[in-house]
Amino acid sequence: MPTFQLTLEYDGAGFAGWQAQGQGERTVQGELLRALAEISSEPIRLMGAGRTDAGVHAEGQVASVRIETRLDGETLRRALNAKLPADLAVIEARLRPDGFDARRDAIAKRYRYQIWNGELPSPLRAPRFWQLREPLALSPMRDAARALIGTHDFASFRGAGSAVKTSVRTLSRVDLAGESGGEIRIAVEGDGFLRHMVRNLVGSLAEVGLGARPPAWLAEVLAARDRAAAGRTAPACGLTLEWVRYPDAAAEPAASPRSEPGIR
Amino acid sequence: MPTFQLTLEYDGAGFAGWQAQGQGERTVQGELLRALAEISSEPIRLMGAGRTDAGVHAEGQVASVRIETRLDGETLRRALNAKLPADLAVIEARLRPDGFDARRDAIAKRYRYQIWNGELPSPLRAPRFWQLREPLALSPMRDAARALIGTHDFASFRGAGSAVKTSVRTLSRVDLAGESGGEIRIAVEGDGFLRHMVRNLVGSLAEVGLGARPPAWLAEVLAARDRAAAGRTAPACGLTLEWVRYPDAAAEPAASPRSEPGIR
Repeated sequence: MPTFQLTLEYDGAGFAGWQAQGQGERTVQGELLRALAEISSEPIRLMGAGRTDAGVHAEGQVASVRIETRLDGETLRRALNAKLPADLAVIEARLRPDGFDARRDAIAKRYRYQIWNGELPSPLRAPRFWQLREPLALSPMRDAARALIGTHDFASFRGAGSAVKTSVRTLSRVDLAGESGGEIRIAVEGDGFLRHMVRNLVGSLAEVGLGARPPAWLAEVLAARDRAAAGRTAPACGLTLEWVRYPDAAAEPAASPRSEPGIR
Repeated sequence: MPTFQLTLEYDGAGFAGWQAQGQGERTVQGELLRALAEISSEPIRLMGAGRTDAGVHAEGQVASVRIETRLDGETLRRALNAKLPADLAVIEARLRPDGFDARRDAIAKRYRYQIWNGELPSPLRAPRFWQLREPLALSPMRDAARALIGTHDFASFRGAGSAVKTSVRTLSRVDLAGESGGEIRIAVEGDGFLRHMVRNLVGSLAEVGLGARPPAWLAEVLAARDRAAAGRTAPACGLTLEWVRYPDAAAEPAASPRSEPGIR
């Protein structure tokens, strides 16, 4: 039974996340399983690289699927897209060696968080941005972000309900782009992420940007290893999973071509 | 009774356009009148600079409103935004001389049309782009667009049901940016626009880009002064009204600050 790597794009607004917490909710996994079941009636094994929360978007989420089919990757991709709703699409499907697991085998991921720092409401930005009306000072935020780079215990930024054993993760990049009073984008790249980790990091960085905390505070929060020490959780709508990388991947992970900095 | 100029941003997806064609439809004008009626019980006169179609977005639509109130512009703006739904916002409100009419007094407008020319489906682009999977050749499209610049009778690009007397308009710019196979943006600037005119221009430019017609065809369509001569009407979701200009305006029309080329 072949195993495929599926790269997925979705608009998170209409989903209760990758995987449902409760019954009867519309999920990315659920829609995908429904489409896969139309291709094979045999049992299907589906695993997502990361369980995106309700409302979180993806440009390059990855899933592994073990399915009884004779279709090649490209034909499977087209067959699935013909069955999927407009807010979820497979942008690549390729054969992988037996045993490939999108979650376990991932070596890096990148998320982008978008903040609209304008004073005015913005209906066109609302679906993809967190609006913070008070001007954010980017320089202190960049200073604070430096403390996050490297290997740390991120327990202070872990959301409740997470069952993972270790909260040690390695971040390779935390980049802030944009300008105070305008659109601000925070790119976070690392080997793995805890539940709500990016949203909690962004919420704490925002407190530094608003002047409520000094830049050095973020290192203290990290050292506390206590969720109560960190700032609020930034809303889901501002977050997009950009890509997931695997050991044997080419230089650039699969994703549809975009002019920087990606879809807003 | 004071007259105000309102600058509006809206996500067109949830509206049956600026003004309803039928009964009971949700419109921009209707939502705005409902909010204005909470501020004054006297009769209100409201006029939009352009009647955007169902599904068309706006970053800087302009309306004039004559309303019995003692509020200043900034206070009126805040009061309205507190009453408006999330997909419609007033980004500026300022006092104008009596008799100001957003439609009659407008001297220029700019629209942006967005095409997603990738082969893959893109759920994150879908709400703001027209997807054309076949690669578009931009150079012939630019050649064709040149014929449109200047003062012409645009009757061939006028949608049915338009009641205006003359179909002569002046276009000052038709700019194509982006790349074949990726995101393409067409900016169209002029003194006024007929019903469906931008969408019909884009539909015809696309036929040139797809190689179905030579670049010189667009000048022939223009000369025919017959709607049947032009190409199809491009879908509404790709279109955004960027701004409307008035004679006494400062160099830049009011709009919330954006990193080019605006919200996607």
